[in-house]
Amino acid sequence: TVASGLEGTTLGLNTLLLLYGGALVFLMHGGFAMLEAGAIRSKNAMNILLQTIMDAACSAIMWYLIGFGFAFGMGNQAMKKWDDTRGAYLGSTTSRFIGDAMFGLARYKTHFTGSGTGKWVDFFFQWAFCATAVTIPAGSVAERFNFNAYLGYSTFIAGWVYPVVAHWAWCPTGWLGYGVNEPVFKAGYIDFAGSGVIHMTGGLAGLIGAIMVGPRLGRFDADGNPVEMPGHSAILVVLGTVLLWFGWYGFNPASILNINTIEYATVCGRAAVTTTLAGAAGGICCLFNGFRRHRGWDLVGMCNGILCGFVAITACCHVVEPWAAIICGGVAGVWFDFLCWLLLKLKIDDPLSAGPMHFGTGMWGVFFTGLLAKQEYIREVYVHQPSYWGLITKEYPYGAFYKKSDGKLLGSQIIGILAIIAWVSGNMIAFFGIFKLFKALRIPPEVEEIGLDRSKHGGSAYNTGNGPTTLGGAPGN
Amino acid sequence: TVASGLEGTTLGLNTLLLLYGGALVFLMHGGFAMLEAGAIRSKNAMNILLQTIMDAACSAIMWYLIGFGFAFGMGNQAMKKWDDTRGAYLGSTTSRFIGDAMFGLARYKTHFTGSGTGKWVDFFFQWAFCATAVTIPAGSVAERFNFNAYLGYSTFIAGWVYPVVAHWAWCPTGWLGYGVNEPVFKAGYIDFAGSGVIHMTGGLAGLIGAIMVGPRLGRFDADGNPVEMPGHSAILVVLGTVLLWFGWYGFNPASILNINTIEYATVCGRAAVTTTLAGAAGGICCLFNGFRRHRGWDLVGMCNGILCGFVAITACCHVVEPWAAIICGGVAGVWFDFLCWLLLKLKIDDPLSAGPMHFGTGMWGVFFTGLLAKQEYIREVYVHQPSYWGLITKEYPYGAFYKKSDGKLLGSQIIGILAIIAWVSGNMIAFFGIFKLFKALRIPPEVEEIGLDRSKHGGSAYNTGNGPTTLGGAPGN
Amino acid sequence: TVASGLEGTTLGLNTLLLLYGGALVFLMHGGFAMLEAGAIRSKNAMNILLQTIMDAACSAIMWYLIGFGFAFGMGNQAMKKWDDTRGAYLGSTTSRFIGDAMFGLARYKTHFTGSGTGKWVDFFFQWAFCATAVTIPAGSVAERFNFNAYLGYSTFIAGWVYPVVAHWAWCPTGWLGYGVNEPVFKAGYIDFAGSGVIHMTGGLAGLIGAIMVGPRLGRFDADGNPVEMPGHSAILVVLGTVLLWFGWYGFNPASILNINTIEYATVCGRAAVTTTLAGAAGGICCLFNGFRRHRGWDLVGMCNGILCGFVAITACCHVVEPWAAIICGGVAGVWFDFLCWLLLKLKIDDPLSAGPMHFGTGMWGVFFTGLLAKQEYIREVYVHQPSYWGLITKEYPYGAFYKKSDGKLLGSQIIGILAIIAWVSGNMIAFFGIFKLFKALRIPPEVEEIGLDRSKHGGSAYNTGNGPTTLGGAPGN
Repeated sequence: TVASGLEGTTLGLNTLLLLYGGALVFLMHGGFAMLEAGAIRSKNAMNILLQTIMDAACSAIMWYLIGFGFAFGMGNQAMKKWDDTRGAYLGSTTSRFIGDAMFGLARYKTHFTGSGTGKWVDFFFQWAFCATAVTIPAGSVAERFNFNAYLGYSTFIAGWVYPVVAHWAWCPTGWLGYGVNEPVFKAGYIDFAGSGVIHMTGGLAGLIGAIMVGPRLGRFDADGNPVEMPGHSAILVVLGTVLLWFGWYGFNPASILNINTIEYATVCGRAAVTTTLAGAAGGICCLFNGFRRHRGWDLVGMCNGILCGFVAITACCHVVEPWAAIICGGVAGVWFDFLCWLLLKLKIDDPLSAGPMHFGTGMWGVFFTGLLAKQEYIREVYVHQPSYWGLITKEYPYGAFYKKSDGKLLGSQIIGILAIIAWVSGNMIAFFGIFKLFKALRIPPEVEEIGLDRSKHGGSAYNTGNGPTTLGGAPGN
Repeated sequence: TVASGLEGTTLGLNTLLLLYGGALVFLMHGGFAMLEAGAIRSKNAMNILLQTIMDAACSAIMWYLIGFGFAFGMGNQAMKKWDDTRGAYLGSTTSRFIGDAMFGLARYKTHFTGSGTGKWVDFFFQWAFCATAVTIPAGSVAERFNFNAYLGYSTFIAGWVYPVVAHWAWCPTGWLGYGVNEPVFKAGYIDFAGSGVIHMTGGLAGLIGAIMVGPRLGRFDADGNPVEMPGHSAILVVLGTVLLWFGWYGFNPASILNINTIEYATVCGRAAVTTTLAGAAGGICCLFNGFRRHRGWDLVGMCNGILCGFVAITACCHVVEPWAAIICGGVAGVWFDFLCWLLLKLKIDDPLSAGPMHFGTGMWGVFFTGLLAKQEYIREVYVHQPSYWGLITKEYPYGAFYKKSDGKLLGSQIIGILAIIAWVSGNMIAFFGIFKLFKALRIPPEVEEIGLDRSKHGGSAYNTGNGPTTLGGAPGN
Repeated sequence: TVASGLEGTTLGLNTLLLLYGGALVFLMHGGFAMLEAGAIRSKNAMNILLQTIMDAACSAIMWYLIGFGFAFGMGNQAMKKWDDTRGAYLGSTTSRFIGDAMFGLARYKTHFTGSGTGKWVDFFFQWAFCATAVTIPAGSVAERFNFNAYLGYSTFIAGWVYPVVAHWAWCPTGWLGYGVNEPVFKAGYIDFAGSGVIHMTGGLAGLIGAIMVGPRLGRFDADGNPVEMPGHSAILVVLGTVLLWFGWYGFNPASILNINTIEYATVCGRAAVTTTLAGAAGGICCLFNGFRRHRGWDLVGMCNGILCGFVAITACCHVVEPWAAIICGGVAGVWFDFLCWLLLKLKIDDPLSAGPMHFGTGMWGVFFTGLLAKQEYIREVYVHQPSYWGLITKEYPYGAFYKKSDGKLLGSQIIGILAIIAWVSGNMIAFFGIFKLFKALRIPPEVEEIGLDRSKHGGSAYNTGNGPTTLGGAPGN
């Protein structure tokens, strides 16, 4: 029949959205790999590339075993508690904090999950996000981190730290998200594609790692002044930036999860527009801010600014006006420059500036959502969802900047920021602390001098010779 | 209901086409960046990378402020003028030349635009095309252009030159396009994804820039003979070519804008086929033509040939037979080789050959459309559109090569070529002329010697040292 | 009407699946190009890049002329032979072996093809697969193969060797595939996206080439011990791996060909999940296996392991459980390590290990399908197809590991393996043998010393100088 034909086509459409969207998000791994390799010294390039690839692989296994379950597993029981007075399905108290089903994708056919419709593709799409969160810190601890500690940390974030945050914000049984059952302030925290859930989490983990592992040898001179340690390839930085930009068109627009209504399609398109404008504004602000300071046009600075714009808009790309996106991205670029300056003052060495970029501008994006999320747009996103995961408050709280706002949304955003900071720093300080206690956090100085590639990974990323013949050859001879 | 469910799914489908299609078109920026960086000397690599990134960012802001409005803004008024005798909506006289609404995306909910259905995603998709047009000239003026002049020029094309051409050819109220109201010769100009609108515009702007800025130092010796200046990385050239190839599958097939009918889906698939075959033919012709001349298999030549095939087929990928696509691409490759030879004879230095490639083979593609566009295929594309943007002539003029063609289409194509040349050259000669008058078009010879990267961008694209330690290191030491 | 509207939307949806899926598969060319260039010495980089680009272009022309016809052309006649007793359309005896229509896309509007619904996009999607099969062997014969022989071989595989295998396994009139008319053992061979059809074919062709052309000069020392010939850029290896990973999300999930039913959408999502898990498991196994042997964390080893996981799961990604995918990929990684060791023992030099990776783990994947394909999932994939291409046996044979399996599927898989080996080795030994007879298979030793780039392709992939000026410059000076 036409109705069942439509059902199939609709599911197919939503599956396609998440399939290619997830693939784009995965490609951001390629972007991170190139960006990070280019932005550090070549003697550690293989190390950081391996970490990125390993993050993708380990996170997949951890996501299968426990991560997806902790994040989105709802179980049968949770969904059965229909509460008439509140008109919503209610989870157990535990389930407000953490998911409790679907480990190893067990019973995925009968169990309900807190993400989208088609379960297999949901798992895939959400994994790609998890992998992104896991790989963000690599840049902060680059060039001096112990590889075993990295392996442990990667597993720990993928299986525990990130899934719990994702559950709070994005699973209907969580306690934090907008439109979940009984959210904070009867409003809830809006974070569309994860300025907080992903970027703050990853960036803060990295920043804590950078502080605890200490600066690279020679990063600060005897007087404590920073010594430039430029990356080895601007080409790779640009390639990485462009791949990340490309991937962000999966990250943000596809986070609508379904695209089969006029509202969802509208939101999806708007997310692409605001994302573009925020990134552009961030890049331009950083370019001119850099010119103001150095009288030079800084390529890497512009790339960073663009990425900051993307990080910031990720929380609210679906619910802000285009002009607001430009403000969001532009301020993110300047805010990032300030944070980088601050870190150097504090003698913290974050080679990729992943702390300022992902934690700093991610936090700004979450906060900004509380200011300029527009009610009309919020309705488009959330109005269809009550039937699916319980009743949303009829008030649809919105940004404090708009008239008659009760500020509940801004309050929720701040609660979200504080909760993420508390959870991530608590976990990561403990985790890194244990490694530090056993002196397993940092590589020995002689290894750092030689470089991780030669010491631990059997060679160099670049081989200029051409094997047993002395003829021929490039690059570099 | 099923009907409203279908409406949502259909809009979602078309949105998805343009979302991922636009993302692919954006990725062509990555392709251009890698191609251009690889094809020039490494001392100017950061300069050209920054230009490419900046093009993407500046064009987004300009497109938001004025570009989209000039190109596709139709306003309420334009659409109200229904003319019974002609059976079409008619715009004002002004609106035949330029769009007049939607600046800053104002009133995008009530206003009509000349592109697709879902407005947000249309803006995004069309921006990606604009960004491509803007970045094409970078290759022509590489290695000696003043950065400020580039910044100005990038803004000028994105906000003024390109949008007007796009309006003429693609907006229903324009005067040039096939199927617009009252087109030239009652036929109109067919340019599906922009062999003319984008590639001729970008390529001609670049060519004019290359002529006005003059050749690179040492490009021609004392006797006026060209001196080879090979690019610094064939790897990057290939990477760029493959990314462009990949992106072209968004550029061409997704230009159908809607994919929810059997005809549109057919056209979309055909565009992918003809694009592939034209690129393949262009590459193979250039490879063998190069072998004929040099007795060597030229990698960069083949890459150029492929791109020429794509540029040429872009105008007509939706309405030609596969064998015609092979002819179109193959001739484009040889025509490109000839134009490159001609430019050197004329002592014009176009480092990336962007003039011959984009302007030259773009022009060929537009002309070819007038020869071999097939009526049956034209109907598939345009038959549904009268109800949407007025009445198309019932005759559906087609290629002059086919029997009984009245040649009106070929005439329209030639008019289109002339109009684009006149508009772009008029604007760009004036624009570059002003900069030249103030001696702000070209960098000083000493900067050109040292390279732009070291002079203006704070260093080199490659850093072979490894920071403060003298141990370790690669590439190149 | 709603029904015809749905028909259009559904076709559009399936077209979109294949359009972007095909584009992703094409991008794997970029992945192969980067991977292969990075994994060999820089003096031959341009040679292998040109081969990859040429494979894409030549395969397109060959696919248009004859390949698609041999693989999927069914003709009118074949489809007319409805056999009532067997309840299926039956082809001619010839058509069991090879397709016989649609050469040069002739009569594509009235003729039926053995692939999907929308013909143009099917041609495109299937071409992208053909191009992959063609380019796999480049790695095996790298650094010493005659370019003319390569040109011939590329054409030969694209137009003859690969299409015939594809016809056997994937065309309804073929003799081998699951669900074709009257398949072997009344079961048939399951190979969803081509572990056998593509990877075994390409990998075996490469392996035979590697054996017949002999090892690179200096690859084995006087005592027959292997001498390391490391690739020149780990960055390119990682970039290639990530692009391949990304592209595999088109390769596998989009191979469902249609996504407009709940079953197809489910299968498509599952394919993305199992692909991810298998690749992850392969990579992790190779990483730890490498550490066990060398006490070092091997980046290139991990990349290879990931790709092996993908190759293996390609046959069965649609019909296995996630835990089975992990086993499939993990074993593939270890099996690959063993095969590489074996090749060195046999003094076979396969620079990219394309033989072990594509042929070896592809074979494992096909075999594994016979063990762990799950009946419930098989039904999801094949249950809708009888009405389209004849009757499937009602028994739906499944993996031998599951209870009550009759082992028919495993038998079919083994038949498939043997058939592919026989066909490919018969053809390729003859083909390479003729070239060898005329001493046109291998380049002269002096060319090998200097490198192919300088000898045949007019230079080096990297130019460290900066043209006529001696100032400036990078990389490497």
